[in-house]
Amino acid sequence: MTAFSFSVSQSDGRARYGRMTTAHGEVETPAFMPVGTQGAVKGLTHRDLESLGAEILLSNTYHLYLRPGDDLIARRGGLHRFIGWTKPILTDSGGYQVFSLAARRTIDESGAHFRSHLDGSPHLLTPEKATDIQAQLGSDIAMVLDECLAYPADADAARRSMERTLRWARRARERFLSLPDDVVVTNRGQAQFGIVQGSISPELRAESAQRTVEIGFEGYAIGGLSVGEPPDVMYDVIARTAPCLPADRPRYLMGTGTPDDLVEAVARGIDLFDCVLPTRNARNGQLFTSEGRINIKNAQYAEDDRPPDPACGCYTCRTFSRAYLRHLYVVNEMTAATLNTLHNLSFYLDTLRGIREAIAFGQFERFRVEYVRRRH
Amino acid sequence: MTAFSFSVSQSDGRARYGRMTTAHGEVETPAFMPVGTQGAVKGLTHRDLESLGAEILLSNTYHLYLRPGDDLIARRGGLHRFIGWTKPILTDSGGYQVFSLAARRTIDESGAHFRSHLDGSPHLLTPEKATDIQAQLGSDIAMVLDECLAYPADADAARRSMERTLRWARRARERFLSLPDDVVVTNRGQAQFGIVQGSISPELRAESAQRTVEIGFEGYAIGGLSVGEPPDVMYDVIARTAPCLPADRPRYLMGTGTPDDLVEAVARGIDLFDCVLPTRNARNGQLFTSEGRINIKNAQYAEDDRPPDPACGCYTCRTFSRAYLRHLYVVNEMTAATLNTLHNLSFYLDTLRGIREAIAFGQFERFRVEYVRRRH
Repeated sequence: MTAFSFSVSQSDGRARYGRMTTAHGEVETPAFMPVGTQGAVKGLTHRDLESLGAEILLSNTYHLYLRPGDDLIARRGGLHRFIGWTKPILTDSGGYQVFSLAARRTIDESGAHFRSHLDGSPHLLTPEKATDIQAQLGSDIAMVLDECLAYPADADAARRSMERTLRWARRARERFLSLPDDVVVTNRGQAQFGIVQGSISPELRAESAQRTVEIGFEGYAIGGLSVGEPPDVMYDVIARTAPCLPADRPRYLMGTGTPDDLVEAVARGIDLFDCVLPTRNARNGQLFTSEGRINIKNAQYAEDDRPPDPACGCYTCRTFSRAYLRHLYVVNEMTAATLNTLHNLSFYLDTLRGIREAIAFGQFERFRVEYVRRRH
Repeated sequence: MTAFSFSVSQSDGRARYGRMTTAHGEVETPAFMPVGTQGAVKGLTHRDLESLGAEILLSNTYHLYLRPGDDLIARRGGLHRFIGWTKPILTDSGGYQVFSLAARRTIDESGAHFRSHLDGSPHLLTPEKATDIQAQLGSDIAMVLDECLAYPADADAARRSMERTLRWARRARERFLSLPDDVVVTNRGQAQFGIVQGSISPELRAESAQRTVEIGFEGYAIGGLSVGEPPDVMYDVIARTAPCLPADRPRYLMGTGTPDDLVEAVARGIDLFDCVLPTRNARNGQLFTSEGRINIKNAQYAEDDRPPDPACGCYTCRTFSRAYLRHLYVVNEMTAATLNTLHNLSFYLDTLRGIREAIAFGQFERFRVEYVRRRH
């Protein structure tokens, strides 16, 4: 079993070009993780993902816990074997989905009490339980359960929440290091990442980072961003938080963001991303291009024979016109979602490839300026 | 421009192994045409279809006429260019869909008056109009407009309908041979097939075949089957009709059927098939296998680690378990439809490959008996 490791081979300003080694293979960073909520990226097959060069998939603990259940997946030999994906997988802790249940959940020190969005059945997600579930799933990177704070939050609420997240992180780490016998550990090489909280306060973020690092994890995430704050505020929090995290561990910005966000976050020291934006937007007919977003459903594309993005080399752009993609969208063909998703994910993964190459050649700042200029 | 041609290279009993040459390439027969109603096979990309070895696609004139319209497609250079599919395409005449509109259509000698299922707008589909639309689409094989009779039909109704279909076929052929200047002909190599009707009467079928052949088409279809009659009745109609059609022209059984139907129809001299069964059933979780059908949603597959069909070499069967496919279906992931459709179409196309090979080696009867035995 390969132990988890991470190394930075090249830096350019604060941007880092690195390599993450997991039990299921390597990931070049900065990397974007397509979201396969229930064990599949909506509308794509795994071979579609592989054709795009995706090296790591994100999957959602909350959904898999409810259906088909982590026990069933453990009996299948773990998530990789169950879903037939042989490359690395990161699982979230389930916390974000639970907090999104709003009226159907209450939080106390033990964890999050919630009712399933499917059948209303009651559940309790504790830091230990979230760790156990992910051990059974056998993802390559497991996340600790954190408390997700709404934005804006007052200073007291932000501190209380940060303190709770730290206590939960300690409990999750202890559990991770000594799982009980009734938990099936399907991936002995699993790593665990801590999560920095603290709303938009630079002081709380710094303290959260320092104390999370003291607990000690294989990597660190910045959570609680992309929750409604302006982009500049988010960029500032990242810029102040990343330097508080150890240089030899990967830094993961959770649930973010636009292509611009990725470039700006890399400029501030981030290595890993996930976001539903490229896949969800694709299903709504919104395509990312090198010259900005287009809504393929607009009538102006009805007779437009150009590819969605003339600068893109993906299967969709090589083969199909805006006119055809608009037709498929308008007549509600499933294939529309597939082709749009292929393009948007290709656009994101190409952006990350461009970022890595720019860092490797010491040209990241030039890349950043040019990338943002073209799209606006 | 390649002219349409067809040749039989090998016969085994009444089964024929042949080759159809069109303006967009060759098709080995007997062949199954996946149904891409609106210019895409639901849930698949064209490269998925190519990976399955599909050599010809069927598309629906009625749907494309309404959206995006044959004028728009003609301005794009025809259906092949519009949808990015470079291999042969057969288009139906739109008749079957119009007749399915039931209360929203009336038939008279001029053609079918109908209201769009989308916006209720009134339209008239005549034999000439159906020919014009398909000329603008530029499919490789166009079908004449026929009258689709309900089953069962009394002898008088069956004769009246057959006579009308013959009159319409003459009008369609005349139009095909001298299209007016305002029709954009996007495929100079387009062929036109006539359609034999006559309900389940052997006499009417023979007469319909003979008189349709007298008009003269590049190929002939048997229509009006798979409309509720028992399989044995259908097989008998095919057995009595096929010999009335010229040996040097392809014979197309429209809208049929189960895997067994394909084998039985080939045994009676059929060369071409289309059917929504493999694709529609896939979306409903029903998979064809070498040992019969399975409903992937059944609880018995929740922990079944076997592929859907252990005898199948398709991407789905090589990569995924019944347990995973059941999970995707139960949680309503789009990818379920894609993977199931890939398998079912693979199963159909493999069946046709097996049929062609068996004919080539003079082993078709052995193949037929064994194929049906395994599945029952």
